[in-house]
Amino acid sequence: MIFTPKKETVPPRTIGLITDFGLTDPYVGQVKAVLARKAPHCPVVDISHEVEPFNVAQAGFFLAASFEHFPEDAVILSVVDPGVGTDRRIACLEIENRLLIAPDNGLLTLALNRCWSDVRAFDLSRAVDAPKKVSHTFHGRDVFAPLAAWLALGGRPESLGAEIDPAGLVSCTWSAPEITDRRARCHVLHIDRFGNCVLNLEPGSLGTPQGLTMESPAGGPLAYAVRYADMPEGEPGLLEGSQGFLEIAVNQRSAAKRFGLSMGDAVELAWEA
Amino acid sequence: MIFTPKKETVPPRTIGLITDFGLTDPYVGQVKAVLARKAPHCPVVDISHEVEPFNVAQAGFFLAASFEHFPEDAVILSVVDPGVGTDRRIACLEIENRLLIAPDNGLLTLALNRCWSDVRAFDLSRAVDAPKKVSHTFHGRDVFAPLAAWLALGGRPESLGAEIDPAGLVSCTWSAPEITDRRARCHVLHIDRFGNCVLNLEPGSLGTPQGLTMESPAGGPLAYAVRYADMPEGEPGLLEGSQGFLEIAVNQRSAAKRFGLSMGDAVELAWEA
Amino acid sequence: MIFTPKKETVPPRTIGLITDFGLTDPYVGQVKAVLARKAPHCPVVDISHEVEPFNVAQAGFFLAASFEHFPEDAVILSVVDPGVGTDRRIACLEIENRLLIAPDNGLLTLALNRCWSDVRAFDLSRAVDAPKKVSHTFHGRDVFAPLAAWLALGGRPESLGAEIDPAGLVSCTWSAPEITDRRARCHVLHIDRFGNCVLNLEPGSLGTPQGLTMESPAGGPLAYAVRYADMPEGEPGLLEGSQGFLEIAVNQRSAAKRFGLSMGDAVELAWEA
Repeated sequence: MIFTPKKETVPPRTIGLITDFGLTDPYVGQVKAVLARKAPHCPVVDISHEVEPFNVAQAGFFLAASFEHFPEDAVILSVVDPGVGTDRRIACLEIENRLLIAPDNGLLTLALNRCWSDVRAFDLSRAVDAPKKVSHTFHGRDVFAPLAAWLALGGRPESLGAEIDPAGLVSCTWSAPEITDRRARCHVLHIDRFGNCVLNLEPGSLGTPQGLTMESPAGGPLAYAVRYADMPEGEPGLLEGSQGFLEIAVNQRSAAKRFGLSMGDAVELAWEA
Repeated sequence: MIFTPKKETVPPRTIGLITDFGLTDPYVGQVKAVLARKAPHCPVVDISHEVEPFNVAQAGFFLAASFEHFPEDAVILSVVDPGVGTDRRIACLEIENRLLIAPDNGLLTLALNRCWSDVRAFDLSRAVDAPKKVSHTFHGRDVFAPLAAWLALGGRPESLGAEIDPAGLVSCTWSAPEITDRRARCHVLHIDRFGNCVLNLEPGSLGTPQGLTMESPAGGPLAYAVRYADMPEGEPGLLEGSQGFLEIAVNQRSAAKRFGLSMGDAVELAWEA
Repeated sequence: MIFTPKKETVPPRTIGLITDFGLTDPYVGQVKAVLARKAPHCPVVDISHEVEPFNVAQAGFFLAASFEHFPEDAVILSVVDPGVGTDRRIACLEIENRLLIAPDNGLLTLALNRCWSDVRAFDLSRAVDAPKKVSHTFHGRDVFAPLAAWLALGGRPESLGAEIDPAGLVSCTWSAPEITDRRARCHVLHIDRFGNCVLNLEPGSLGTPQGLTMESPAGGPLAYAVRYADMPEGEPGLLEGSQGFLEIAVNQRSAAKRFGLSMGDAVELAWEA
């Protein structure tokens, strides 16, 4: 299906971007050049382009942590796409008024899990603007950017593809933690600049655990904290951080170094009550 | 004090940003998402997000070197905030028409020192937009960004907090160099990508020194230069650079490597006349 | 020649930016502050600021690969300028409706080589906005940014300098590959985040070579490919990538690591038919 830019009938929508393209190569600039050409009045906000190459779970965390802060009609495009050139689908979630676009590879799972309101999903795999000009290796620029531009100008996803069941989207491999009686097994979604280790555990999912410890990969007690000051300096804790997920943190230090944690690591927690 | 976005009564003001959030984590994107939501027509210009974590002096240099290049009504938000969650104040300087917002931790000192014109200062610590939604760990997004947005839409600082004496703001520890007869003791504010070492010395503060030498941490003669070509290739000099401060530089080489300098290092200079 | 901002007589043009200033120092922010001041309604798109310091050929590749994706009236400013402060010229290419501005040091060569349509060139060396305020070390901010702003507001290059013969511009040292019968000698223009090695060879310049091998600096067979899937996983190929140049690539791996390639390296290829 070929689409052409439609006339502006709505105020220009903000476009958010998440990719693993990095900021050295000209790839992000070319995506933005296409957006400037096709949706010239839509503001563009970079969420991150430094997703680890092909790390779909990290991109999913960035999206889940960020989309609610955007304007209510934002279009957020996430491109971490190890399957470029294969027949993986292109999915679009409509969450309240925001549209989230990504390859259907598990990137949308964490955002979907955080939605309490109605969500609609669409398969936009066939919404290709100018098929003859599409490179085989850079769909971010040649397929996703024109699509995001079109939606940001007020295009409706149902006019570009079929509505599908959100439950049918590809799931992120370890998107859901295993929480049993007084034990949780989860994963490190992201390690931030300060060494905080974000887990795929939502605040409240453990209650307010007493006698909390990390069992593996390292061992030792963890305070349960809602602010850094709740942890003695240099002591570790499980923090209800600002990103909507629990974080293993050490006040003014790097928890990643302290515990030797890397992205993707499995973490086991236990508590007494 | 809770504030709500006011109607636009003035042209949208440019918002400049300095943080130590880095460009990998989604933190800067979330700050900009809030700005896009609350001040949708205000252009945003990144000065740097790669301030060394918690390095208030480096952020202060970035601000002092940059604010004059912005539009005359710009709002510049600087967030390097080791005291987040404590009772440190939020300060706002009004310098001519520009507004500089930062935690009151010494970040504003260098900018204040460079102002010859009238400066007003305000304590905006109580200007919190939506207190119930404020995280304990990310005031850049939850407190500072809404505040900057409100000011960029034409809000006046005196309607959000009391005017205070600029001299009462927290000072950067080693903001002022010690200049005595033919000797100066100063600090390295920043080392740039090319290895130039920016000192907290303003052009002219040493006159045009003859027989200039570095005494410590390394020793040796320095040419006094206004352009790279004034220094023989590979030879070091004290350069009146483009940033409003003197720089130790080596033509086409890294002065930081040559002299083993790091950010924050004390430097002693001497001259003959 | 001094120029003053003209009244807006045309829609604001998008400004693209390529520099070697990096994203840590405040230099890019100061360039954008000047653009915000002098051309407040012109959108700015970063192509890359992480050009290797002084690497004119890499910047030339970024420009050649990107300019066609921009709006048809874009102004693209590229500043990698080892000759700042010398009498090197400032050049402007008009390619169809786009304007490309850069120091005349070979940066424009690759873009010029890719143009099949009419190209005009101008010498804008004397177009200095406010000579007394120009630093000796940062023409990107003090000379190039005001110039780009003025052109983005609709200024015409012929009103700022003389038209010159594009063939008279400084050429990039090894801009042209040597292609003889069944052999090619070329250079690595850029190595991207994924380890793909971009060569200064255009797609089609070798025909569709059979029995292709790399002769140096490493040896071995290369598949000729138009998509990653054309190469068995882990096997190398010469790929018609998305950037308008041939790339040495390894499916899901780093070709740079595999062959020990660095930017600027000479590469020799041979084929049978």
